[in-house]
Amino acid sequence: MASTQPVAASSGVDVKASPMAKSTEPNRNPKYDPKKPHIADQPMTRKNWYKMVNWLNVYMIGVVPLMGCIAAVWTPLQWKTLIFAVGYYYCTGLGITAGYHRLWAHRSYSASVPLELFLAFCGAGAVEGSIRWWSRDHRAHHRYTDTDKDPYSVRKGLLYSHLGWMIMKQNPKRVGRTDISDLNENWVVVAQHKHYLKALIFAGIIFPTIVAGLCWGDFMGGFVYAGILRIFFVQQATFCVNSLAHWIGEQPFDDRNSPRDHVFTALMTLGEGYHNFHHEFPSDYRNALEWFQYDPTKWFIWSMKQLGLAYDLKQFRANEIEKGRVQQQQKKLDQARSKLDWGIPLENLPVLEWDEYKEQCANGRGLILVAGVVHDVTAFIEEHPGGKAMIKSGIGKDATAEFNGAIYMHSNAAHNLLSTMRVGVLRGGSEVEIWKRSQREKKDVQFVKD
Amino acid sequence: MASTQPVAASSGVDVKASPMAKSTEPNRNPKYDPKKPHIADQPMTRKNWYKMVNWLNVYMIGVVPLMGCIAAVWTPLQWKTLIFAVGYYYCTGLGITAGYHRLWAHRSYSASVPLELFLAFCGAGAVEGSIRWWSRDHRAHHRYTDTDKDPYSVRKGLLYSHLGWMIMKQNPKRVGRTDISDLNENWVVVAQHKHYLKALIFAGIIFPTIVAGLCWGDFMGGFVYAGILRIFFVQQATFCVNSLAHWIGEQPFDDRNSPRDHVFTALMTLGEGYHNFHHEFPSDYRNALEWFQYDPTKWFIWSMKQLGLAYDLKQFRANEIEKGRVQQQQKKLDQARSKLDWGIPLENLPVLEWDEYKEQCANGRGLILVAGVVHDVTAFIEEHPGGKAMIKSGIGKDATAEFNGAIYMHSNAAHNLLSTMRVGVLRGGSEVEIWKRSQREKKDVQFVKD
Ligand code: HEM
Ligand code: HEM
Ligand SMILES: [Fe+2]
Ligand SMILES: [Fe+2]
Ligand SMILES: [Fe+2]
Ligand SMILES: [Fe+2]
Repeated sequence: MASTQPVAASSGVDVKASPMAKSTEPNRNPKYDPKKPHIADQPMTRKNWYKMVNWLNVYMIGVVPLMGCIAAVWTPLQWKTLIFAVGYYYCTGLGITAGYHRLWAHRSYSASVPLELFLAFCGAGAVEGSIRWWSRDHRAHHRYTDTDKDPYSVRKGLLYSHLGWMIMKQNPKRVGRTDISDLNENWVVVAQHKHYLKALIFAGIIFPTIVAGLCWGDFMGGFVYAGILRIFFVQQATFCVNSLAHWIGEQPFDDRNSPRDHVFTALMTLGEGYHNFHHEFPSDYRNALEWFQYDPTKWFIWSMKQLGLAYDLKQFRANEIEKGRVQQQQKKLDQARSKLDWGIPLENLPVLEWDEYKEQCANGRGLILVAGVVHDVTAFIEEHPGGKAMIKSGIGKDATAEFNGAIYMHSNAAHNLLSTMRVGVLRGGSEVEIWKRSQREKKDVQFVKD
Repeated sequence: MASTQPVAASSGVDVKASPMAKSTEPNRNPKYDPKKPHIADQPMTRKNWYKMVNWLNVYMIGVVPLMGCIAAVWTPLQWKTLIFAVGYYYCTGLGITAGYHRLWAHRSYSASVPLELFLAFCGAGAVEGSIRWWSRDHRAHHRYTDTDKDPYSVRKGLLYSHLGWMIMKQNPKRVGRTDISDLNENWVVVAQHKHYLKALIFAGIIFPTIVAGLCWGDFMGGFVYAGILRIFFVQQATFCVNSLAHWIGEQPFDDRNSPRDHVFTALMTLGEGYHNFHHEFPSDYRNALEWFQYDPTKWFIWSMKQLGLAYDLKQFRANEIEKGRVQQQQKKLDQARSKLDWGIPLENLPVLEWDEYKEQCANGRGLILVAGVVHDVTAFIEEHPGGKAMIKSGIGKDATAEFNGAIYMHSNAAHNLLSTMRVGVLRGGSEVEIWKRSQREKKDVQFVKD
């Protein structure tokens, strides 16, 4: 499964004029020097491996949750805190799925300022980077899916796409460039990016601690459960969009790249599991199309619309979506078809005269003419499901009408079987329906692309 | 769903020479006079309805089992008798499915004389008519499926195909003619037909009564359970092949007629439930293809082969079977495709000159040339998932390469969407890939048959 995305694509068009996020833009790392070869591009040795690890991220994603688990042993879990932690889990999850992903990265709907503020706050509480940084990477992921410019390409392994891309240092030049001019014009996004560290600490830790502390006196539980451990679960769940959603499931729209649809991924990720659909129709505010499929992010956006807080919900027409499905099914069918034996092509058959045909039959060969093609059924007479007498009645004649309904309208299976018995074409031989059919079949096979 | 079988088919070919079972052959009814209009062809009135009912069959299929049920109230059921009744149920069921159906009606394998005798005996014990009579009707059912000449056409209702065709008198002229010369040459079949009444009474009633009576002293239980009630269950189960198998399930090979595949029918009928396959490949000794599908009749035939009692098991090549599946899927897909909107056909578009194209763009219209076709994307610029700058860079140019991978390899969905924005064709306009594509699409749609 080679990727079909162009790898040298960034050299395509002159985009100096457009306000692109340069891939060399320092990502809150003032020490970064674009002239030196990046550590990620050097071979890993016993001496330098620790330099390749992004220790800050290891700490945030691995060590902190571990400490949370240990702390949990001494922290009794109160019912109120549990309910609040789960509720806040959903809020911060939606901050990522409904906010970071569907609103800002894909602009699949528009949100009023209160909703934007809510999502920007909750999204910060999920501790997965600023909207601006996350969306830039995510757009690169869509544009360069499965290539080296994809920040979390699943081609580098399931674990890499889940965590590895954060735990190992990345050469910022590697990730593909994308247009984030619209985000740079949005003050909520810009403000969140500017004050990200404060937002993270407040929404991620302080806020849940205070709520649990001031409302029912459980500061410690709020900190450990609704803070640390809730962050851990939200992170792992949303990371699944990059890993699982590119690993397990069906590909009803396009099988050239890795995105897949699976209900398990949807259950893990607040509905982001219909990922084959999503990569094909990224600006659709839905991920699941059917009401019975699990897509709470869609339900949330739709509810916000009912409340007047969201508008311009984008949706691809059912016609366009069905077209995609039909094309993928056609591709699969063409692949299946091209693997089958459809009989000797008519142009490779010898041409027989009518008299030759009659003569060979008189000499005892069991030839039957159907639709201009001569078939040798000698070995099949005994086997004929309709009996010996019937099939013998066609020998030496033009049995087209009899075969096609005058006596018995044979099944597709019988037509297919007949085509394996071809031995010649009759000169000037009546309707050549099978010819038309085989033309069609050959043409279909040409459609197969990979 | 009109039937596609020819209705006036019996007039097709001169078959006087062949030893066909004439449809007027008296079916053990010496009073039958072919010259008088048959009672079944007269309108039913309050005065004549009882003449239309086949009271013998009502008695055999309805009254006798009822009496069996009543007798069962006073007859204690012994364990040994139960086990024997169930075992004999399977034997007599196989007499019908492996014997009457797959061996004699369809000749899907050959059997040695001992096996033929066993099947003819068990088949008689199922009390569903002689091999010769059953196979004649069944061949007519295959040849004239769903037409008036089909003896148990499901088009006349589920109940009719299950029981009605036996409970109501039939004009023997109505049922289509079939070739049973092979059966007339088979001495087992001829002998069973000649001594059918004796065979029926012995295998159906006396034999199970004696076995239970002599072996463990339960004459009455053998008579009621292994005789009467066992007959009732075998009959109802095998009747399902004519009713259920034409009523519920999938149609993976051909949807023009009524046969269907369903696991429930298979469970009821010793494996005869993959009936869409069976009508398409009647001379295949299998009904279910996969090892995990329930087809004990197939397992029985296969085991007989291992014992040297059956041979020449006929099997269609996997290639032929897959061809049938692919064709049916193609048909479904063509139907789906023909219902969708594939954009304005290229031949209906106005032809634009290059200068016109440039001029209109200069006047502020958002036109983009891709693959020789001019598209109006004005309203889409704001919506473009890849950003305004990207799509604007294509306006007024030939953006074929950019659209197709030089910058971004757009999805099928994007191609489909693009085709809905067509406004013109460029004179002499470079590669016309979309043209080829639309040609192909149009051609596929023509394949749709019903
Ligand atoms: C003009 C000559 C022929 C006549 C009159 C004729 C007639 C019939 C009839 C009446 C049946 C129905 C039997 C039943 O379903 O019980 C039948 C079935 C069948 N015949 Fe023929 N046949 C002819 C030639 C052929 C040939 C050349 C083939 C070779 C492929 C063929 C293949 C089949 C097959 C596979 C069936 C099984 C049912 C089906 O698939 O439709 N027949 N035929
Ligand atoms: C030559 C001009 C164009 C360029 C350079 C361009 C570039 C891009 C880029 C880079 C993306 C990736 C954005 C992402 O996935 O985050 C994209 C996505 C997309 N573009 Fe364009 N685009 C152009 C014209 C068009 C036009 C005319 C259409 C009209 C149908 C279109 C429809 C789409 C759609 C539907 C997507 C979503 C992803 C997909 O379906 O492949 N683009 N485009
Ligand atoms: Fe993805
Ligand atoms: Fe996405
Ligand atoms: Fe049938
Ligand atoms: Fe059959």
